[in-house]
Order: sequence, then structure tokens, then C-alpha cells
Amino acid sequence: MFMRVDQLQANLPPPKKADPNAAFALQELLGGKYGEMSTLGNYMFQSFNFRSKDKLRPFYSLVASITAEELGHVELVSNGVAMIANGPDKPKGDLGDGGDISDAPFSDMKDIRLAAAFLSNGGGVMPANSNGVSWNNDFITSTGNVVVDLLHNFHLECGARLHKLRVYETLSDPTGREVCGYLLVRGSVHAHAYALALKKITGVDLDKFLPTPNINLSKIPECQKYLDEGSHRRLYTFSPNDYREMAGIWGNGETALPGDPPGELEVVDGMPDGGKIHQLTGVPSAFTPDYAPEEMFEIAQKLYKASR
Amino acid sequence: MFMRVDQLQANLPPPKKADPNAAFALQELLGGKYGEMSTLGNYMFQSFNFRSKDKLRPFYSLVASITAEELGHVELVSNGVAMIANGPDKPKGDLGDGGDISDAPFSDMKDIRLAAAFLSNGGGVMPANSNGVSWNNDFITSTGNVVVDLLHNFHLECGARLHKLRVYETLSDPTGREVCGYLLVRGSVHAHAYALALKKITGVDLDKFLPTPNINLSKIPECQKYLDEGSHRRLYTFSPNDYREMAGIWGNGETALPGDPPGELEVVDGMPDGGKIHQLTGVPSAFTPDYAPEEMFEIAQKLYKASR
Amino acid sequence: MFMRVDQLQANLPPPKKADPNAAFALQELLGGKYGEMSTLGNYMFQSFNFRSKDKLRPFYSLVASITAEELGHVELVSNGVAMIANGPDKPKGDLGDGGDISDAPFSDMKDIRLAAAFLSNGGGVMPANSNGVSWNNDFITSTGNVVVDLLHNFHLECGARLHKLRVYETLSDPTGREVCGYLLVRGSVHAHAYALALKKITGVDLDKFLPTPNINLSKIPECQKYLDEGSHRRLYTFSPNDYREMAGIWGNGETALPGDPPGELEVVDGMPDGGKIHQLTGVPSAFTPDYAPEEMFEIAQKLYKASR
Amino acid sequence: MFMRVDQLQANLPPPKKADPNAAFALQELLGGKYGEMSTLGNYMFQSFNFRSKDKLRPFYSLVASITAEELGHVELVSNGVAMIANGPDKPKGDLGDGGDISDAPFSDMKDIRLAAAFLSNGGGVMPANSNGVSWNNDFITSTGNVVVDLLHNFHLECGARLHKLRVYETLSDPTGREVCGYLLVRGSVHAHAYALALKKITGVDLDKFLPTPNINLSKIPECQKYLDEGSHRRLYTFSPNDYREMAGIWGNGETALPGDPPGELEVVDGMPDGGKIHQLTGVPSAFTPDYAPEEMFEIAQKLYKASR
Amino acid sequence: MFMRVDQLQANLPPPKKADPNAAFALQELLGGKYGEMSTLGNYMFQSFNFRSKDKLRPFYSLVASITAEELGHVELVSNGVAMIANGPDKPKGDLGDGGDISDAPFSDMKDIRLAAAFLSNGGGVMPANSNGVSWNNDFITSTGNVVVDLLHNFHLECGARLHKLRVYETLSDPTGREVCGYLLVRGSVHAHAYALALKKITGVDLDKFLPTPNINLSKIPECQKYLDEGSHRRLYTFSPNDYREMAGIWGNGETALPGDPPGELEVVDGMPDGGKIHQLTGVPSAFTPDYAPEEMFEIAQKLYKASR
Amino acid sequence: MFMRVDQLQANLPPPKKADPNAAFALQELLGGKYGEMSTLGNYMFQSFNFRSKDKLRPFYSLVASITAEELGHVELVSNGVAMIANGPDKPKGDLGDGGDISDAPFSDMKDIRLAAAFLSNGGGVMPANSNGVSWNNDFITSTGNVVVDLLHNFHLECGARLHKLRVYETLSDPTGREVCGYLLVRGSVHAHAYALALKKITGVDLDKFLPTPNINLSKIPECQKYLDEGSHRRLYTFSPNDYREMAGIWGNGETALPGDPPGELEVVDGMPDGGKIHQLTGVPSAFTPDYAPEEMFEIAQKLYKASR
Repeated sequence: MFMRVDQLQANLPPPKKADPNAAFALQELLGGKYGEMSTLGNYMFQSFNFRSKDKLRPFYSLVASITAEELGHVELVSNGVAMIANGPDKPKGDLGDGGDISDAPFSDMKDIRLAAAFLSNGGGVMPANSNGVSWNNDFITSTGNVVVDLLHNFHLECGARLHKLRVYETLSDPTGREVCGYLLVRGSVHAHAYALALKKITGVDLDKFLPTPNINLSKIPECQKYLDEGSHRRLYTFSPNDYREMAGIWGNGETALPGDPPGELEVVDGMPDGGKIHQLTGVPSAFTPDYAPEEMFEIAQKLYKASR
Repeated sequence: MFMRVDQLQANLPPPKKADPNAAFALQELLGGKYGEMSTLGNYMFQSFNFRSKDKLRPFYSLVASITAEELGHVELVSNGVAMIANGPDKPKGDLGDGGDISDAPFSDMKDIRLAAAFLSNGGGVMPANSNGVSWNNDFITSTGNVVVDLLHNFHLECGARLHKLRVYETLSDPTGREVCGYLLVRGSVHAHAYALALKKITGVDLDKFLPTPNINLSKIPECQKYLDEGSHRRLYTFSPNDYREMAGIWGNGETALPGDPPGELEVVDGMPDGGKIHQLTGVPSAFTPDYAPEEMFEIAQKLYKASR
Repeated sequence: MFMRVDQLQANLPPPKKADPNAAFALQELLGGKYGEMSTLGNYMFQSFNFRSKDKLRPFYSLVASITAEELGHVELVSNGVAMIANGPDKPKGDLGDGGDISDAPFSDMKDIRLAAAFLSNGGGVMPANSNGVSWNNDFITSTGNVVVDLLHNFHLECGARLHKLRVYETLSDPTGREVCGYLLVRGSVHAHAYALALKKITGVDLDKFLPTPNINLSKIPECQKYLDEGSHRRLYTFSPNDYREMAGIWGNGETALPGDPPGELEVVDGMPDGGKIHQLTGVPSAFTPDYAPEEMFEIAQKLYKASR
Repeated sequence: MFMRVDQLQANLPPPKKADPNAAFALQELLGGKYGEMSTLGNYMFQSFNFRSKDKLRPFYSLVASITAEELGHVELVSNGVAMIANGPDKPKGDLGDGGDISDAPFSDMKDIRLAAAFLSNGGGVMPANSNGVSWNNDFITSTGNVVVDLLHNFHLECGARLHKLRVYETLSDPTGREVCGYLLVRGSVHAHAYALALKKITGVDLDKFLPTPNINLSKIPECQKYLDEGSHRRLYTFSPNDYREMAGIWGNGETALPGDPPGELEVVDGMPDGGKIHQLTGVPSAFTPDYAPEEMFEIAQKLYKASR
Repeated sequence: MFMRVDQLQANLPPPKKADPNAAFALQELLGGKYGEMSTLGNYMFQSFNFRSKDKLRPFYSLVASITAEELGHVELVSNGVAMIANGPDKPKGDLGDGGDISDAPFSDMKDIRLAAAFLSNGGGVMPANSNGVSWNNDFITSTGNVVVDLLHNFHLECGARLHKLRVYETLSDPTGREVCGYLLVRGSVHAHAYALALKKITGVDLDKFLPTPNINLSKIPECQKYLDEGSHRRLYTFSPNDYREMAGIWGNGETALPGDPPGELEVVDGMPDGGKIHQLTGVPSAFTPDYAPEEMFEIAQKLYKASR
Repeated sequence: MFMRVDQLQANLPPPKKADPNAAFALQELLGGKYGEMSTLGNYMFQSFNFRSKDKLRPFYSLVASITAEELGHVELVSNGVAMIANGPDKPKGDLGDGGDISDAPFSDMKDIRLAAAFLSNGGGVMPANSNGVSWNNDFITSTGNVVVDLLHNFHLECGARLHKLRVYETLSDPTGREVCGYLLVRGSVHAHAYALALKKITGVDLDKFLPTPNINLSKIPECQKYLDEGSHRRLYTFSPNDYREMAGIWGNGETALPGDPPGELEVVDGMPDGGKIHQLTGVPSAFTPDYAPEEMFEIAQKLYKASR
């Protein structure tokens, strides 16, 4: 089972302006082959298909728990994409109706790279890559063989790190850069964790392979805050009570990678302090949340009061 | 953010035998157009793209919270598929190595409907439909318009109910039937919830549309236990502290549908009591979890102890 | 069986200039999830799969007849896309040969959003969405259950209305705007018709749900002509002799929606007066209809005379 | 514009039994690369994208008119598939409700080749091939170059003829065999027509290429009736008043192919005598048209009377 | 540039009987995610996109050369699939015409798992997996980063080895088993080669990771002949004059893996002795190579003589 | 079997500048329906599936040998795309590390048409069309019927010629224009060869159909060099010893097409003189071949020496 908390895993600064092309470049980190839908999909289905769970508890717990973290990554990137496509929250932007729509108010939307993102999703995010091609199960490897699956995961996190770096290099918007900075730290943790899992089984010191690509996180300003907190040394269980057995892999005397701030690896119960979710103020002329939403706002207000 | 609990939403009886064709019929409820990946994908991305969240809190909470429940549905169906494809848990079946594999030990697997499910996934589940065609984002509607999205969701749950009924009618295995029984009750709740949400906004009594298809859950023996518990009257927040505002929609004097056991609708904090996750005993000759897994079991045992 | 008439359902004004990006924004209304290929595909296959046709004649007739209208919508949008991509008809533009092609005469085509639309289709339309992703059968729901199928159709028309509105808001070209204006009126009729069909079966007044999104057609100048004619109150049989039984649903005392010009709903035999189809003058340098088409024109002229 | 007539292009004998595997073998002729969705899609989009229509009237008319015939082929194959999957019409089979569904009444459906065709479509047809893979726009060639498009069409019809022959060789059911017999005759006409069109333009006697594959229709018993009628010498305009100009190509002294009954080619106004559409009696236990459809039948009966 | 030699890389024994389900199980090794189209596609596009080739010559040569070997693997699996689907070569089976086809001579083909393989391909192979789903570029990783690409390749070969083992376990036909035996040896070489390449760059002894899955080739009787020849110690340049620089990686003192027959690794110029390509005798009643091929055979015979 | 030679089939001039939009327009000729992946895939799988090979040797040899040439075409277009996306080779551009990447050094990449080509492939080529949609097996026809397959191939080459002409018309860069010029000559040879093959079998003078589209190669300056050499009259065996039997078709008194320089057709053993492959200098800041590649260059240098 899964529970949800109405927060993001990290605090995202508001975007400075609406920039659909930047938003849908960031979408590569959601729905691309090496995006968060892929890390989620791989670990989630591997955890469902995991054989002999009790006998392999630390390995099962690792995959099952990171699944939950990846859900939050999917959420984080998605919020980032929608925020950048939508622009800054405009507290009263959604009041009144959409007015006269007969003068092509969105004529610039026919020239953005992924016009359907406006026409169909009103600027919302979808599980597709930066070219608008859908995520699908070709991106999932779940063989039931523990070593093959973990090796796939290790390669996936290294590839994902490369993609995050390249997306980062295209973005000047603070929202998207923060998404990349946070994910670079956490993705590096996952690469490290799968390396250690494989080291335990095979004896091969895969952790020496890291970082791949060969650039330290210290070169990314947006990573510093998270490194300072020690995020790179922590795996959260993302669970009230389960998955602690992965401490046999992550912990147990293992330490941070050489290029990162030193310290012991540790498993932390639960989840990190989260950041707030932005409003994504609607745009009545784009029919979000509706053309004339005020009556709906009033109804919602009454229902809200009735729920208290 | 999301958390994970190492339990299923319902207790699944063990399968009586391995039956890949039945398993991958059930997979329609995972990766088909009206499967749980679709309900999850729709509500998850709608919740990410939701505009003017604070002004529409009860509606946002409804969609955001059901997302978390759908994750558990994806997990439940997936476990069901893998269990039926794998057959009964065999506590010592994964001991020893895979032995002599030179005599075509899996020759019957070339004749199952979806041979790749064995060849590639070792009998595991994948987000595809019962024909093996991948789930993809064509199944998601997330327009940012609240009424269109909710109407889509209402139709989706009605269609999903039909699909669950048909899958149920093909299965004689108790595992799969229990999956269907549980999901029929919970899916009916979601259809009811979206009907009420739309009724609040538009005044149209969409709840009179239910049940669609026009068969009561009382006709499905596997639903009784859940109806007796009142599951059909409950929406869980699937959250430690959030999403209670949906009580303005689900509750607030609304009652169960006429064909179901009577009573008031209620929002319940947190999640239901869950059921245990099966072991899916590995089959060394199929290389799950490995050809000769015992050394790995020993390593895992040591790591497990180190984690305590 | 189907017959074809060499006219469009509406008179389209010529485009003012070639604008590939505008043309392929409009293509969302053809090959997108909520485009005309989807309404066509759903109703066509539902009509093929319709069970117990005689016992459900009015419902069957409604779906079967609207199928024929949707064919004309597919044709109308397609003509619109090709017209805008091609630009104004140039009566003698296709005379002579394509001349010297060695100086990159179409260098601007590598920068349009969907370059393949020029490279492969010579500026022609294809059943894909505004991002160039193919239409496919994931967009079709045909369950054989009448209520589920009709509910799907109702949601589809509401979603399609939203998409038409958004595409309209991106276009300043008169051709595309006329396409949207016409389709908004006709799509609203279809939404209304499915609402009434479901009302007959379930008693739920789904027509009160309309218009969705909540904007009246009176706000769209390009709709006025059609509203003035009463198009919003008419369903054509699009058949010489069949499908009149849908008058039991559309008609029978039902009236126009409150926000539209008042009056009774009526079924009209046959089809509306159509508009002429544009020439789409060829561009020999783009090899349409050929590099040096004049000999072909002469041959065609002779064959034409022989056919008279 | 298109009109619809509530008849099939040919009279299909009822199926002898329900045979889903045979039904979905026949589906290759609908949604496969060389199926009727492909001939329809190619000619329809070519007709929309046709350049310099007036100057090339006979060629335009040929493509535009065959489009309308292909719609009827799509309908014919689709009806055939649904009939074979559904089995013989059972006049009262749809009365009463679906009864007790708790004993896996459709357990055999999990073993049919395309289980989703039952689970999702209730045995209905979909635009997919015989393996269940969706038709899509990769199957369409519409370049705007008349010679390339016509050559594509000629190859398409030859390939389609081969596919029809192979499907025919797998079917013992009379419904499916009749579909094949009819389509073989009509497809051969289209191959012949495109050969003549190209001969007019290029002078190459492509008609000598036929029949491809090199088997005469006289070897197919189900073709005889249509050959006897002269169907192989006729192109229908499938239009009340348009498209007669194709007589410059089909006619004009051209005669039947050597292996077929001799005679002049002729263009016939309008359409052939059609055959009746089967009822596809519903199966309440499969929720088609509904679980308990009688109330719906009564409502429909009243609406039917009101429409007269 | 590439050259072709009219031989297979290995000698395949003829199949004992036609077995389409076995043939298309083997197709997983062609068009599945871990099939030979994927190894080919990855290495081919990586070699095209390889940066700074001269400075990284040994690595470039390794990837470029293995590409050529993978072409032969694609050919080998493809021939195996077509052979098993077609059955034993019947020297005179293709003489005469196809005879009377009116008695459903291929009725059993509607029940094979992938009916389209007969209907569309006449029993031929296609780049799809064992479920008939197309290979596509989602299976290719070509990032331009050498370490990420090589790590991907290493994981790919390990996954491919698992898939080969599972396919092998389903086949009793000698043709398919030989394909698996040969590919297991050669695929193990490639896994070893990529491990060594990465070891050179990173210092991590990835070769200790092998064999993955943890079963020695000595357990597979069909591998013995190739192990005895030393195939597991050899990389062929598959080139008249190029790619010898990969000897810096494969060779240079490196030796066979512990579980395989011992010896030094060596680069061998050119290619292995090949095996002959089977005839795939046509079946005139299935229109392969034609319904009445004898005239074509005579023409071919004359052309053959003219070419000498 | 296949061998590889480390050269391109033609000498490509270096690009003048990096121009991703031009590069991915050219990609239409790789992964589009009428691109080189399609010609390769069709001929390769047809050669694998070819029936009664010995009896049809000249036809088999033609298809098998052109397959090898198409591999080189895939390589040529791919190199062209990657060169144009990467820009001129910069001999020392890959020295040093990537420096400070924190200032959005690739911000312009979020606005190129196919952003994923940078984000995922670092500017590399992929088997997709100019819109980024994947090549797949829907583009392959391999029926096993010789006439249908050859006719398909003839149409394919004519369509491919049209696409090459249109791509050529969009490019001002010399690299891409040279690719088009070379491929136009060679593709015209293939169209001619398939026309002759069909003429031998059917007697229809399909060669009179050429050139299609109706423009002579003499109008394309980039074709002249190849015409002067007589490339349009030559088919290479692309093999050390095989495939000469195709001289029965190509040769045997047949001559060049009327619009091309006159002369006899001839089969030439082996392959043409090739051109050198460009370096594609890496860009460390884009992580190609790595962020700090110098250590890797040193390692490669040592391995290179060890291999000599």
C-alpha cells in the first residue's frame, strides 16, 4: 500500500516566467527512457515481481523503498514542468471569467515545440519525453533475476544522472534548476545504493565506478544545500515501519563517495521534510480550472467548510 | 510525497496452480485502457496539473487521495498476476540450483498466450494489457479543466467496472477472483465519488447513473466481505494528515447507493488494514531469483542481521 | 455502405497565407485523443459492434448516423489543415515545371514544428495530433455495453469541445477559425444528443451538464451563422433513407440548450448544403502533383472529355 | 461529405458457430498493414491532400470514389469479425438478465488468442491486426505526388490481394469466406483501376502485371457469384452525382483482365445492391448490450414509436 | 561500409518439423528488448555517434566491430525462426502450382500464437518480440558518453544471456537449440569484452561479475563445440583490414573466464568459418515464392546462366 | 555474415556549422517510412525469408546484395546527421574538462525541434524520422511472395527518391547535400534494378516508369560527380565472392535510363572506394565522450600501442 503526503520532496522556487519550451525540456526527466517514470516503473514492477522476498529481504527492501521515493521524484519533476509551463502563481489570476476569446489570445502556443501540451493539457505535464513521445513499458526491465535487475538499475541511474546534467545545462529558470539539483543528489544516492547491493552479491567494487559521468556534485551550485544536509548519505525508508533491512546494504560501515562530503551512510526512517506544492493558478481563458470558475470556487468553499 | 507500507490492500488467497493464461487475462485490469495503470495515471497527473488548488481543495483532495489508493490497486493486481503465473508459494522451491536445463524444462511456455511474459519477465507482471500491448499516455486525460477531467474519471470508473466484471467471469482461480471482488467494491466507490463531485458542481444527479453496468455487487460472492465491512461507504485519505477536505463531497449527508448495504458515506483517516504480500518463491531453473541462489540467500541473511 | 458527395460540410474561406505551424495546431482536432478521427473511430466501431440492433433502433441509429457526420468532420478538418499548410489557391501556380531546385528552395521547412509534414506529405494532413503522434485504436472504446459506450461518447464530445476551443484560441487564420466555429456547433449537438440518449435510459438529466466547458457558443463569432440557421437544433440522418428513428431521442419535444437560440430539436433527412472543396494548387518544385505536371494535365483533360 | 446506408455491400451468411480465433484471423484484413483500414486511410487522406483537383479530375475522382467503397469494406470485414466472434444471431438470446455470473461463465475466453477482444470489446472488432496490434498512420502514404501515390496504391492492392487469399485459406466458416470472396473481387478491381491510371500517365502497361499473386479468381468458389454478375468489370461512383469522370480511366474501351469473364469496364452511378446487417444478438451475461437489457428494450420501443 | 557473405555464422541443423509457436518464441531473441536487433541497434548507432574516434580507437573499434558480428546474429536468429516456422527443406515442395485452395488448407494457422506471422509474412521472421510487438528505438541507448554507453552494453549482454537461456529452455527443436548454443557463447564473449573495456577505463574488475546469470556454459550441451574450438576466447574483426586496435582490450594478457576452458583472449582477423544458408523451400499454396512458381524458376535459371 | 570496413560509401564534406534542425530534417532519410532503415529492413528481412533461394538465385542475390549496400546508406545518413548536429570537427575541442556548467551553456538546445536529440543523444542520430517518431517494423513488407515483395521494393525506392529530393531542397549545408546527392544516384539504381527484376518475371517494362518523380538527376549538381563516374550504371556485389548472379538482371544488355549518361549496366565485384569517417570531436561540457576525457584518451593511447 501507499500513502500520500501533500508536499513535494523539495522546496521549489517559483518560476520567473512561463516558458513552455523549457518546461518540456525538463519533461525529458519525467517520461524519457532515463526519466523518473522509468526509474519508478522499473523498481515498482521489480518489487511486485520480486521472488523469495523473505530470503532476500535487504535487497527486496531496497528496491521496494526506492520505489516510494521515485513516486516523489515523478511528482517533483511533474510539478516543475507544470510550474514552468504555467508561469508564476498569480493569486487572483483565476478570478472572473475568461473574457473575450475571439482574438486568438493563445496564438503563440501554435509555435511552441509541443503544441499539444497546451492544446490538450492546458500546459500540464504528461508522461512523455521532451519530444512528446509517450513513456511505455519498453523502458522497464523486470526479469525476476536479482543480479540482472540490479545491474539494470545501476546502469539506469548512471544514465539518468547524465540526462539530468544535460537538462540542467539547458535551463536558466530557477524552478527547473532546483529540480535538477535535488534529483542529481538523490539519483546519485540510488546509483551508489545499487552499486553496493551488487558489491555485496558479487564482490565487485562497483562503487568505484562512481560518479558517472565523471563530474562531482560539488560543481552544481543547486546541489550544495542538499550535500550540506547530508542528503547524499541518506536513504529514507519512505515508510512508517518497513524496509529498514536495507541498512544491511546502505550503512553497515559504508561511507560517502570520495568526491562528496564525507560521512557514514545511514538509513533514516520515514521521509524528508518536504516543500510546499504550488497553486498553479488557473487561467480562465484557457479553461483552467474553468472558463468562469467563480461559482465553482464558492461551491468548493462551502464543501471545504462542511468538511471541517 | 508518497510512503509505502509492505502490505497489500486486501488479503489474497494463494493460487491453486500456475496458470499463465489466467494471469495475463487478469493483466487487462492492470495495463488495459480501463485498467489500474490508467486510473492511477489519470488521477496522478491530474493531481499534479490541478489548478487553483486551495480554492478547489475538496476536489483536489479527492483526486489526490484516490491517486494513492490506485497505487495500491496497481500493486494488488500486479501481485495477483504474478502469483497466478508463478503458482503456489513453495517454501523450499528456491533451494538448490536449477539443475540440468538441457532438456527443455519450459517447453510449455512457448505455447502460452504471451510467451514473452515468461521469456522476458520470468512470469512477472508488466504494465500491458491482456494482449501484451503496453500501457501508455494515450490513456491519460489531464486537461486542467475540472469538469472535463472529473467527467472523464466518472466514465473511466464505469468502464473499469465493466472490465472487472468480464475478467472476473473468466477466472476460476481464487486469487484472481479475490482481486476482482475487492476492486469491484473499491472501483464502485470511486465511480460514486466522482458522481458526487460532479453533482456538487453541476447539480446533475449523476449518482442515479450507478451502478453501471446495471448489476449489483451483491451478485458477486467475492464482494460480500467488503460490503459487510462497509468498504463501499468509505473513502480512506491514504495519508497521515492530508486530504480530509474531500469529506465535503464524500460524506456531508450522502449515503450508500440503493443496491448496496445502507449507511452514510464517510472519510476515514489513513488506510485500511492490509493483507500480507506473498513470497513468490523463486524457480532456480528459470533463473529466479538466480540459477543457484543459496549463496545469495546467505549473504542476504547476514546483511539482514547487520541491519537489526 | 457509405456514399460520398464532393463537397465539404461547410464553406471554408481561403487561407490568407501558408502557415504550417497553424495548420498542424489545427491537426490536433483531427488526430488527437479528442479529435475527429477519435469521434469517427468510436462511433463507427460501436455501430459495427452494436448488439440487438432492432430492439435498440433509436440508439443504434443515433450512433450509426453520427458516424457519417463524423466522416465529414474528418474531411473538413483535413481540408482545413492542408489548405493552411498550402496557402491560398494559386490558379496557375501549378503550371510549368519546378525549375531549378538546387538552391534550397524550402530551407524554411526544416524549422517548422513538424518537418515531416513537408518532407513526407508535401504539406498534407495526416491522422496524427498536433505533435505528430499517430492516432491509434487506444482512442477507441467499444465495449458492446450501451450505457458505457454512450457515457464514453458524452465525455468524448465534452472533451472535444474543450480542445476545439483551445485550438480556436491559437488561430488567426480565417480558414482554421471557420473549421473551429462549425465544429463547435456540431460537436455541441453531438454532446447534447448523447446526453439525451443517456437521459432516456437512466433518467439522469445529463443535458443540464451542458455546455461543458461552461462558455456559450454565442461568444464565438464564427458560430453565429450556424446558430442563426438553427444548426444547433438539427441532426441530419446523413442517409437517403435510414436512421430516422433517432428522432425518438433527438426531437420528441426536446429543445435547444438554454444558452443557445431557442427552438425544438429536429431530425432532418439527408445532409446539409455543403461547401466547395478547394483546389490545393500544386507546387511543382515540391513535386506536387508532380515536378512537371503539364503533360499529366493534358492527359487528364483528354480522359475527362472521354468520360463525358 | 459522406452518407450512410444501413446495409452491407454484400450479403453475409450467418456464422455457424462462435469462433474467436477465426474472427481475429479475419481481423488481419481490417487492421493489418494490407487491411481495409489501410486502403481506406490511404485513399481518404490522398483525396483530402489531392493537388490541382480540377486539372486532374479523373484521377482525383478515382481516388475519392474508391475511398467511399473502402468505407464499406471496413464495414464488411468488421461485421464479419464481430459476427464470427459472436456466433449465430439468437433472436431471444438477449432477453432476461445475465443471471448468476459467479461461476466463471467465460473461462474459455482467457485462452483465446486475443483475450482483450472479449475482455474489452465483448467480442467486438477493433482496428488492429490479427495479432492485436493497432492500425496507425505508418500505414498511410500520402505524398501529394500523383505518380508515387498511385504506385503505392497499386502495390497496396496487390499486397492486399495476397493477404485476402491467405486469410481465406485459414477459414472454414461461411461468413468469413464470403467476406474474402467479395473483397477479392473488389480488391482486384481496385488493383486494375490503379494499373490503368498509371498506364494513362506513364504508358507502362501495368495491367499485364495482374493478377498478382498469379492465381485467377475462378479458383475461389466464393468469387463466382460476383464474377457472374460482372462485379469485376464495374466501378461504382458510390455517390449520388459525383466522380463519374473516372470513366476516363475505367472504361473508355478497356476490358476485363484475361483470366476473368470478358467484357468492357464500366462506371456505374451509385452503389451496388447491399445485404442486410446482422443483429449481433446481445449476451446479457457478457453485459452486451447490458446485464438486464429488457427495460432498455422497452424504452427503445417507445422511442421508436415516437419517431414514426 | 559493410560487405555480405552468403553464409551464416554457424551451421544450423535442419528443423525436424514446422512449429510456429517455437519459431516465434525464438523470435524473442531477435526483436525483444534484449534481442539481437537491440544489440545491433545499440552498437551500430553508438559507432555512428562515437566521438573523438581516433583518440579512443580501441574502444571505437570494439563497438564498431561487434556491430558487424551482431548483423550476423540478427541473420542467424532470423534464419532459425524462418526455418522452424517453415519446417524441413523439401527439395521439390515448391514445384507445381498451389492446387485447390478452397478447402481451408491452412485452418490451423488461425490458432497459432502469432497468426499474422503466417497471414502477413508467410511464416517469415520479423523484427518483433515473441508476442509480436515491434522492435523500436526505445531499445537503443546512444548517449555519446563512452562510460554510460559501455555500461549499458555490459548490462545489455548480461540481460541478453538470461533471455537466451530461457528461450533455450523452451525449445526441443535442434535448429533453435543450436541458435541458442552459438549465441550464448558469442554473447558471453561480448559481455566479457565490455567488462574489460570498462575495467580499462575505471579500474573496476567487472569481469568478476561474469557469468551472469550464474551458470557456466559447460551446462549447455549445444555450447560445447564452440567452447572446444575456443570461440569464447576470440573476437573476430569482421573486417578485411580494420578494427584490430580492440586487441588492446581483448587480449593484452587477458584470459578466459574461470568457468570456461582456459586460454588467452585473442583478436582474429576477418570472420569465422560460416555455415550454409537453408533453402526455405517455398509452399505454392501459401503463395511462396508464388502460387505457380515454375515459370519464374525457368526465367531465373536463364538469368543465372546469363550471369556466368 | 557481414563484414565492416571503416569507411563511408562517399566522401562527405565537413559541415560549416552545427545546425540541429537541418540535421534532424536529414534524419527523415534515415528513420522515416521511406528512409534507409526501411530500405535496409525490407531487403534484409526479405533476404532472410527468401524461399527456394537456389532456384531463384538472381533475384535472391539482388535483394541480398542491396541489403549490404543499404547498411552503408544507413551509415552514411547517420554520419551526416551526427556531423551536422555536432558541427565542424574541432581537433582539440575535446581536450580539457567541460569546465563550469552552471550557467546554462546549452540553453539554446531547449528550443531545437527535437530537444531529446541533444538531451538524450548528445546530438547523435537515432532511427527515427524528422519528427522524432521511431522507425518500426510497420515499415517492412516481407510476404515471401517474390512478385509482391519486389513490387513493394520498386514503390519504396520511388517514394524514397521523392523524399530525398524534398530533404535536399531544405538543406544548404554541404554535408547534407552531399548525402542527398549520393543517395539520389544510388537509390535511382535500386529503383532501376527492381524494375528490371519485375520486367524479367512479368514482361512489363517498368523501367519506363523511371525516373519517378519526373526529374532527371542532371538537375542536381551534387549528383554529377557520381554520374560522371558511371555510378548510375553499377551495382556492386558488396561481397568478396557472392551475389554475382544478379548480373542476369542488372547487365545482360540492359542500359542506363534515357535521362542519364548512356552506357551498359554492370555488376562490379566488391565495393566502391569509400570516404573517410569524420571524428565527431567530443564536447566535454556535453559529456561527450566524457566530462574530463583526457585520462581516457591516455588509457586508449596505451591500449592502442599494445594492440600494434
